[in-house]
Amino acid sequence: MNFSSKLIEEAVNEFSKLPGVGKRTALRFVLHLMKQNTADVNQFGNAFIKLRNDLRYCEKCHNVSDKPLCDVCANPHRDQSTVCIVEDIRDVMAIENTQQYRGIYHVLGGIISPMDGIGPSDLTIESLVTKAATGEIKEVIMALSTTMEGDTTNFYIYKRLKDYGISMSTIARGIAIGDELEYADEITLGRSIINRTPYENTLQMK
Amino acid sequence: MNFSSKLIEEAVNEFSKLPGVGKRTALRFVLHLMKQNTADVNQFGNAFIKLRNDLRYCEKCHNVSDKPLCDVCANPHRDQSTVCIVEDIRDVMAIENTQQYRGIYHVLGGIISPMDGIGPSDLTIESLVTKAATGEIKEVIMALSTTMEGDTTNFYIYKRLKDYGISMSTIARGIAIGDELEYADEITLGRSIINRTPYENTLQMK
Repeated sequence: MNFSSKLIEEAVNEFSKLPGVGKRTALRFVLHLMKQNTADVNQFGNAFIKLRNDLRYCEKCHNVSDKPLCDVCANPHRDQSTVCIVEDIRDVMAIENTQQYRGIYHVLGGIISPMDGIGPSDLTIESLVTKAATGEIKEVIMALSTTMEGDTTNFYIYKRLKDYGISMSTIARGIAIGDELEYADEITLGRSIINRTPYENTLQMK
Repeated sequence: MNFSSKLIEEAVNEFSKLPGVGKRTALRFVLHLMKQNTADVNQFGNAFIKLRNDLRYCEKCHNVSDKPLCDVCANPHRDQSTVCIVEDIRDVMAIENTQQYRGIYHVLGGIISPMDGIGPSDLTIESLVTKAATGEIKEVIMALSTTMEGDTTNFYIYKRLKDYGISMSTIARGIAIGDELEYADEITLGRSIINRTPYENTLQMK
């Protein structure tokens, strides 16, 4: 594409580095910015620079936090011995929205993915093992994606933690609430039969 | 959404001001930026600030240009008496890609849209009328969107220019090349019959 301006070309190139953004969408974003006033565009650009330079992580769970301890880890009403392992802040937000979980989190910062060059040492697994070694963790719930990478990461964490006498589980996989059986894929349906839940348990849930 | 960090919240808010970007996509962009190194994110943010502060427009056609005259207007091989009226730089790029047009452009910077509060005075129509008054324009081709706003703008420009003895046309509307008749909408098909082209003319095209 010939943008007739180096400045536009640079801005389009920067936008198209974002996931899922091609040159066409990037140009649409750039044209939008060109119509905004200078102060707004300065604020736009500086928000990301400030984010990258000033962002801090919780010392305990590695979630994003402006304070040394995040709100969840600092909350005395949360069960500090139950740890839910998640990939990133989006999963923390999703689980917090359910209002069903009263433990704390451990944010890995990604999942093991050899295709993307991400190995165990790129994640916060060592810090999890250190915490486990002190005996402060009683239960671990693994809430990673149901992909091959997620399963690999689950298995790696299981191997690293299995000698510390911690109760380990993964979140339940099965038919989503409101879904029709006939549209479920075979693997999910098969697993949901193998991992069937005693009916009395479902009665206790609201 | 509770982002557990003011910095993330601000960055998400800035991204979600872009057209077609919601909070969820904005968070995805922010998580991507958080994983980049500081220099890259600085370059990202500064590209837009620089764009907004340093961007210049061609004095003649109002297209984006780093020089006082854009490449098209400065080209002596282009017919300076034929002017194609377009909405923004995207349309210039699209028409240039066809390699079928040898005249110059006039970039309006938008179209008349009372719903969005855009009137004729927000566009570069006065400058077009001034150019027409000097007699340097012989032909005007209106290449705006086939929407109500585009038609309104076409009609407004027609009224402003009709006394200067300029040959005025709009780009042809009809069935797109490669399209099947049965899937064409009625209005397009109807117009393509009214504006039928002598068969000899199509033979001359390659």
